[in-house]
Amino acid sequence: MNDVPHVVIVGGGFGGLEVARRLSRAEVRVTVIDRRNHHLFQPLLYQSATASLAPSEIAWPIRSLLRYANVTTLLATVVGVDSTTQVVRVEDGTTIPFDTLVLATGARHAYFGHDEWEPYAPGLKTIEDSTAIRRRILLAFEKAERAPDAGERARYLTFVIVGGGPTGVELAGTIAELARDTLRRDFRTFDTRDARVILVEAGSRLLPGFREELSGYALGALTRLGVEVRLGKAVSNCTAEGVEIGDQFIQTSTILWAAGVAASPAAEWLHVPTDRVGRILVEPDLTIPSHSNIFAIGDTVHLEMSDGKLIPGIAPAAKQEGRYVAEAIIQRLRGEPSLPPFRYKDVGTLATIGKRAAVVDLGWITITGRLAWWLWGIAHIYFLIGLRHRLSVALSWLWIYLTGQRSARLITQDEPAQGWPANASSRSLRAEQ
Amino acid sequence: MNDVPHVVIVGGGFGGLEVARRLSRAEVRVTVIDRRNHHLFQPLLYQSATASLAPSEIAWPIRSLLRYANVTTLLATVVGVDSTTQVVRVEDGTTIPFDTLVLATGARHAYFGHDEWEPYAPGLKTIEDSTAIRRRILLAFEKAERAPDAGERARYLTFVIVGGGPTGVELAGTIAELARDTLRRDFRTFDTRDARVILVEAGSRLLPGFREELSGYALGALTRLGVEVRLGKAVSNCTAEGVEIGDQFIQTSTILWAAGVAASPAAEWLHVPTDRVGRILVEPDLTIPSHSNIFAIGDTVHLEMSDGKLIPGIAPAAKQEGRYVAEAIIQRLRGEPSLPPFRYKDVGTLATIGKRAAVVDLGWITITGRLAWWLWGIAHIYFLIGLRHRLSVALSWLWIYLTGQRSARLITQDEPAQGWPANASSRSLRAEQ
Repeated sequence: MNDVPHVVIVGGGFGGLEVARRLSRAEVRVTVIDRRNHHLFQPLLYQSATASLAPSEIAWPIRSLLRYANVTTLLATVVGVDSTTQVVRVEDGTTIPFDTLVLATGARHAYFGHDEWEPYAPGLKTIEDSTAIRRRILLAFEKAERAPDAGERARYLTFVIVGGGPTGVELAGTIAELARDTLRRDFRTFDTRDARVILVEAGSRLLPGFREELSGYALGALTRLGVEVRLGKAVSNCTAEGVEIGDQFIQTSTILWAAGVAASPAAEWLHVPTDRVGRILVEPDLTIPSHSNIFAIGDTVHLEMSDGKLIPGIAPAAKQEGRYVAEAIIQRLRGEPSLPPFRYKDVGTLATIGKRAAVVDLGWITITGRLAWWLWGIAHIYFLIGLRHRLSVALSWLWIYLTGQRSARLITQDEPAQGWPANASSRSLRAEQ
Repeated sequence: MNDVPHVVIVGGGFGGLEVARRLSRAEVRVTVIDRRNHHLFQPLLYQSATASLAPSEIAWPIRSLLRYANVTTLLATVVGVDSTTQVVRVEDGTTIPFDTLVLATGARHAYFGHDEWEPYAPGLKTIEDSTAIRRRILLAFEKAERAPDAGERARYLTFVIVGGGPTGVELAGTIAELARDTLRRDFRTFDTRDARVILVEAGSRLLPGFREELSGYALGALTRLGVEVRLGKAVSNCTAEGVEIGDQFIQTSTILWAAGVAASPAAEWLHVPTDRVGRILVEPDLTIPSHSNIFAIGDTVHLEMSDGKLIPGIAPAAKQEGRYVAEAIIQRLRGEPSLPPFRYKDVGTLATIGKRAAVVDLGWITITGRLAWWLWGIAHIYFLIGLRHRLSVALSWLWIYLTGQRSARLITQDEPAQGWPANASSRSLRAEQ
């Protein structure tokens, strides 16, 4: 087994996982390295952030998804690649040699050069991000219940979401529903329906990746939910007190960041050219320029379609790229001629707005409203991995649909305790490891 | 509404919740204060620690459980009580006046004067404890996969549980099943069935609160699961390298603490006498000596039954005490004579050992084996709050029963990231708040 070629895949997202699966019957050894033990179903991450789903409903241990005899999974953080000696460097100093390397390292949100805003305007990319945002949203209502005056209370009850893409639209719609429906009977000193949800988008319309008529529909649907949408407004500052939008300062304790993108440092590891946000400018066959045995796929890659548009950073694109790379590796092993350039097949885009509306853009047709919402729900349950998670998410959604109640309303990862019970064990555990 | 008596309840556990509910139709205002936003179903906490259930399956927002017009819920940390001026002091300096106070502040595990062991041997009382322990158990297997030599690997694959009560027995049985069944096909460099699970109990038998014949049964059932049980052995040291038991040193990276109890500091707030572990020595009517308008219930209380035995620190006892206190408050309001002393009615105790065995001690009959396991499961689903959680937990258990797979296998709350993606947002969020 040790004399067959070794394929190392960095990243267990949609792209990396697809490569590993497609190579499970090939004559190769595969090692998947991720610094998390879980694959994350990112399209539903906003639901974990808004207490609709539990983290474990949208994440799976990578190694249990890759139970193939020729696949090894390692929990490790990659810190570099040496393309000359063909090794991947890991944080503990060990190196992992490869014959072929696939970089599927993803992206994160970005603050347009204002990283100092991050503490006040957290973004949403990881499970920890989602529980931190969930905590922040729920704590705002808790603090409003104890607020000493109306001004303070209004600040806690103002939620500002920056970025009008699918994540921003979905967060805004769900927070509005939390306030109007889920939490309505739970507080005594205020009416949760007085909460303000403000969605800020610097461009001229919501959902810029979708067709224009869908942007109008999304705007109307959000407005009906009570969301204030501010188009053509850029954020100029974020502080602990609030957010500055143009020449207006909005007092708020909760700013959520759903704008901007920054690629992983994969390009830095290899010293190769990138676009403005750090994505590797790959060849049409998804290899890295002058490194024919190193592929890169997914959100860390910049590749244009024939019409000059960028392939979007969504799960179907990463999966298609993963399948292409696996096939390319198999072709090379067989000594067959190389594949034609990668071509992205647009399978459509979806976004949901609260619990009864959505937009679906399939290219040849657009659908809105309740039918789109059902399509959205069915598609997402279908793409979840495994019957267990499909049943669990279907039950959670059915419950929210029927009762308005969300079951994952936990505030965890508390601030250091001053009183009782002291949170000593989890804190010292974290410090010690 | 403001001129009716104000009852303040500190703690939203089984006892505090019961008092609040029973007072929901009385002519009083009720305020429930807890430093967590959730009520925790502690009997199933070990299942969250072993990846069988998600945290949100065993915890509920306290305020959504107390949607009564006369009940207010506050998320706040109590730091003291002034019985002269009749106020509760909160961590931010505010005070909350009361006419009647109920202290239901619980207990934590204790290290018999060796608090320095805590970082190496975390205990299990909160949701955060459970995700920290889950992380530790799963990381041990991950580190074993990357271990450089057999000695190191053996250390990672050794799990030591200290304390042979129900929590220790349940943790040991479930970890043994994780190794033998759930994780069996997920690793490449070792056989997970080689993992050692060692349960240490200083007394002469397991489950000391149960009848003696059940202790023997539990010992046999654990041994069949491959657990090594060490009776009559006290732990003399815990370090990062391992645990010292008598004159033997066992190398291990995972020590879990399920022994000892320390009451909340409620007694210190009031400067009243306690037993050895800090529990308040309450009057037979659950009031605090010379403070007739302050009650204390649950695990923070020391009260003996007529046979001289201590009322056990379990959910049914706290609930019975809560009901008694609510009735006492209502009687006093009506000016009726006070109630006879509180009497604990033993409703039985249960513990489970892996997924096919359990022990049930109902006092007049004991049951073991598969029938006991079904009784245990049905009883726990029955006592969960709400249809939603019953369905969800039933689905989770059915799935584990049929497939051996546990769906909550997430390693979260990562150590500070050195690589990619930087975990900056959740860290700075924690630091900032």
